[in-house]
Amino acid sequence: MNVDSSTTAFYRPARIRTVLVANRGEIAVRVIRAAQELGMRAAVVVSDADRESLAARLADDAVHIGSSHAAKSYLNPAAVLAAARQCGADAVHPGYGFLSENADFAAQVEAAGLIFVGPSPQVIAAMGDKARARETARRAGVPTVPGSAGIVSSPGEAREVAERIGYPIMIKAAAGGGGRGIRVAHDAAQLDAELPLAQREAQAAFGDGGVYLERFIALARHIEVQVLGDGNDVIHLFERECSLQRRRQKILEEAPSPSLTPKLRAELCASAARLARQVGYRGAGTLEYLFDETRGEFYFIEMNTRIQVEHPVTEAITGVDLVREMLRIADGEPLRFNQSDIALRGAALECRINAEDPLQDFRPNPGRVDELVWPTGPGVRIDSLLYPGYVVPPFYDSLLAKLIVHDESRAVAIDRLARALRELNISGLKTTAPLHRALVADDDVRAGRYHTNYLDTWMAAWRESSEAASAAAQECVAAGSASTREAS
Amino acid sequence: MNVDSSTTAFYRPARIRTVLVANRGEIAVRVIRAAQELGMRAAVVVSDADRESLAARLADDAVHIGSSHAAKSYLNPAAVLAAARQCGADAVHPGYGFLSENADFAAQVEAAGLIFVGPSPQVIAAMGDKARARETARRAGVPTVPGSAGIVSSPGEAREVAERIGYPIMIKAAAGGGGRGIRVAHDAAQLDAELPLAQREAQAAFGDGGVYLERFIALARHIEVQVLGDGNDVIHLFERECSLQRRRQKILEEAPSPSLTPKLRAELCASAARLARQVGYRGAGTLEYLFDETRGEFYFIEMNTRIQVEHPVTEAITGVDLVREMLRIADGEPLRFNQSDIALRGAALECRINAEDPLQDFRPNPGRVDELVWPTGPGVRIDSLLYPGYVVPPFYDSLLAKLIVHDESRAVAIDRLARALRELNISGLKTTAPLHRALVADDDVRAGRYHTNYLDTWMAAWRESSEAASAAAQECVAAGSASTREAS
Repeated sequence: MNVDSSTTAFYRPARIRTVLVANRGEIAVRVIRAAQELGMRAAVVVSDADRESLAARLADDAVHIGSSHAAKSYLNPAAVLAAARQCGADAVHPGYGFLSENADFAAQVEAAGLIFVGPSPQVIAAMGDKARARETARRAGVPTVPGSAGIVSSPGEAREVAERIGYPIMIKAAAGGGGRGIRVAHDAAQLDAELPLAQREAQAAFGDGGVYLERFIALARHIEVQVLGDGNDVIHLFERECSLQRRRQKILEEAPSPSLTPKLRAELCASAARLARQVGYRGAGTLEYLFDETRGEFYFIEMNTRIQVEHPVTEAITGVDLVREMLRIADGEPLRFNQSDIALRGAALECRINAEDPLQDFRPNPGRVDELVWPTGPGVRIDSLLYPGYVVPPFYDSLLAKLIVHDESRAVAIDRLARALRELNISGLKTTAPLHRALVADDDVRAGRYHTNYLDTWMAAWRESSEAASAAAQECVAAGSASTREAS
Repeated sequence: MNVDSSTTAFYRPARIRTVLVANRGEIAVRVIRAAQELGMRAAVVVSDADRESLAARLADDAVHIGSSHAAKSYLNPAAVLAAARQCGADAVHPGYGFLSENADFAAQVEAAGLIFVGPSPQVIAAMGDKARARETARRAGVPTVPGSAGIVSSPGEAREVAERIGYPIMIKAAAGGGGRGIRVAHDAAQLDAELPLAQREAQAAFGDGGVYLERFIALARHIEVQVLGDGNDVIHLFERECSLQRRRQKILEEAPSPSLTPKLRAELCASAARLARQVGYRGAGTLEYLFDETRGEFYFIEMNTRIQVEHPVTEAITGVDLVREMLRIADGEPLRFNQSDIALRGAALECRINAEDPLQDFRPNPGRVDELVWPTGPGVRIDSLLYPGYVVPPFYDSLLAKLIVHDESRAVAIDRLARALRELNISGLKTTAPLHRALVADDDVRAGRYHTNYLDTWMAAWRESSEAASAAAQECVAAGSASTREAS
C-alpha cells in the first residue's frame, strides 16, 4: 500500500475508547492486538472454558459471559451486550463465526448506542440471503453460475436450459443443500432419464419435488476477493485462492491465486469491488467465486460480510492491516486508500494448524500443549491462541494456529514455508502440521495445480503412504534394537 | 523490491551444495534458514558451549571445532577450515564478528578451493584499513569528517585548519583511539592553549606526541547505508539509523532514518553505492556515516564488509532478503535488482534483547530460559538463538534476540513495537526488554529526536525513575498485604 512512511502522527481514537471483542481464539487475539496498536482499550468476552485463554491474558479487560457451550456464551446476543455495558465498550468487533453475520445482533448493538465493527444490519441481511445476493450480483453485471431461472418441470424445458448452458449439467433439489440431492447429466438422453428420478428423489428426501439446473464444473477452484469499504467507496485487495479443502473445510490458502492470468485477475477483482459498491459496503468483506479453469470463467457464489480466517495472506501481499482498517473505519475514518494505492507484492501462503489427527480422519485432539516452538525469522507470521502449557478446550473449532509466510514470489514462499514447517513444534497433541509438511512437498501443490476436489483424493494416497512409512519406521526401530543388542 | 510474484522457478543451487556457517548465535540461525530456503545444506561449527544451540539443532550438520573460548573455536581459522573439509562444504559464510572481516581468513578459504560468502580478501583488507577507506571515499567524492590532512605541529598551522573547518574543533591523538586523548577547542585562544597540552598528553599516554584536528560534531547521528554488489554492479538499499547507543553499543535501530530529508537520503545513499562500486564490491556491506543534523551534512566514517546485526530493518522496508542474496551472489548469480527495483516501504524498528540487567549497569546475565513467549501477529519478526529451556552460555556476546517490527509508517510501527514488547516474555534471566519498553514510551524517541549521546544521558534519568517506581511498588505491596490482613 502507498502511505507516506515518514508519517509522524500517532493514531488517536475519535469515537472508540474501548472495543469489546465478541469472539474467542486466534481471531480474538488478532483483534485485541489491532485495537491496542491503535491506542484503544480491548476487552474480550470469555466463556468458562476461556478464562485462561491467550485473548483473556492479552486483553485489557476480560468479561465472563457464560458457560463453555457457545449457545450460552459466544452465541448469546444478550450476554454479549451485557458484557459491553459492563466494560464500558463503545464498539463491538464480532470476529468471524458466532454472531459475526447475524443481522439481528448487529441491529441490537446499534440500538444499544454502540458501534458494530462491520457493515450495517441491512447489508448483512441482504448479503446473507444467497438468492438476493446473486440477484444483486447480476444487477452489478457480475457473473453467477449459469443455470435455470428457477424450478424446471418438463423434460423439454430442461433440455432447452441444458442446450443453452452446455453439458454436463447438474440437477439440484431446490429444497436440498450441502451437496445432497444432486445428479449429473452428460447429454440429453441422460437428462431425460435423470430428471424424473431426481424429482421423485427430491420429493422423498425433502418433501418437495422441485429441481433446478446448474452448470456442472468438474474441476472448480475456490477463489475469493477481499474488499474494504467505508460506506461510500469500496476498494479490492486482490484475491485469495482456497481450493485446498477437505470436505469443504479450507486447509491451505494463498494469495495471489496461481491460476489467474493478470487479465482475469483484474476482471475478477473489479467485479467484486463493483458488487460491494452496489450495496454501499462498509468494513472488510469477502466475495467468494467459483473459477472454471477450463473455460477461464468465474462465477460469484456468495459474500461473507466479516473478516475471514485467511485474511493474513492478503495483508502480506498488500501491506494493509485489514483488522486495523476495520477499526479505523468504525472509528469514523474514511478509507485511506484509493484503488491505485493497493499493489500486489510477492506471494503468501497460510497453513491452518488444527488440533486434529490427519491420519485418524481428522479426529479432534484437544489437550495440553507441552513444548511450543514457533518458527521465526524473515517472512514468517504466526496468529495463534496457544501459549506454553495452555490446555486446548474441547468445545470449539480446532484451529490452533495459522502459519503464514510471505516472500517475493510463490516458489520461494513455498520453500520458506517448508523451512518454517520444519521448525514448528507443538508437542502434547496431534496437529495437522504433518499434513502440511507433505502438501508443501507435493509436486502439484508446488506447481499450483489443484482444485476443490484435489485434497480429498490426495488424502487417501497420503494416508496409505504415511501408514506404509510408519510401518517401515517401526520395523527399522525393531531391527535397530536387535542389532544394538547383538553388539552389546 | 520489484520481482514478478508469479515466478514459478524454484531455486536450484549452481555451485553451493553445502554452506558452512562459521558463526554462532542468532546470525548462525539466520544464515542456516536462508541456506535451507535456497535448497542448500547448512552446516554449522560449534564450540563446546554450543553443542545444544538452536543453530546446531536447525542445521543439517554441526561440526565441533573446539572449546568454549572463541580463540580456540570461532576465531580459529584452521579449525573452521578443517570443519569445512569434514562436512564437505563448498562455501563458508562468516556471519558478523569473529572471522567475518579477517582478510587472511577469506584468503585461506579461497586458497582451499571454497567460496567465501562476502567480498574478496583484497576488498576486505582495503576497507578494513580506515585511513585507506577514507581516502577511497574522497576519491569517490564522498565527504569525510573535515579535518587536518595529517599531523599538525605549530599553533599557526592549527589555527589555519580550524578557521577553514570552523569551531568547535577536536584535537585528537594520532596514536589514540576509542575516544581517548581527545580535547575540544571552541575558539582560537582555546586552541592555542590546548594544542601543546594535547601534544604533551599524547606523548605521555601513547609515546607519540602527534595530534590532528577534526570537526567537533556535538550532536551527531549514526546513519549507515546498506549496499549489495555482485562484483560488477552495486545497489543501495537505503539507510538505517543506529544513534540509540549505550557506550557505542547499538541498542535500537530503525529504517529509514527519521532525521533525513528525501533529498539528503538520496544523496547519502547514492554516495554509498558510488563508494562501494569504486572498489567493485561483492556481497552485502554497510557504509557508516556521521550525520551532522545542525549543518545537514553527512560524513563517511568506515565500511563494514559483512552482514550487520541490524540488517532485518532493511529487509523489512525493501522486501529484499539480504542473507539469501549474499548466498545467491556467492552461488554465482548476478544482482537480481536494478536500483529502480528497490523501493522504500513503511518503517521498521529493531530492539536488541540482551541478557543484561539494564538497572545493574548492563551486567551480563546468562542462565536458563524458563518460559519463552514471543510476540507474534502481523508485522512482527523475531531472530533469536533461544528455545524454551535453553541455557545461555556465559562466553559470548549477550544478544539473545532481535525483535523487529514493520508497519506502514514510523508512528504506527512504534505503537506496534510497544504492543509486541508487552507480549514478550523471557523468564529465568534479566534482559534489556524493560529498557526497550521505556524507550518506546519516550517522547523524544517517539518523535525521532535523538543522537549518539542521547541514550547515555537518558539512562541516568531512567535508572532513577525505575528505582523510584520499584520502591513505590514495594510500598504498595506492603500496604496491600497490611490491609488484606486487617480485612481477614
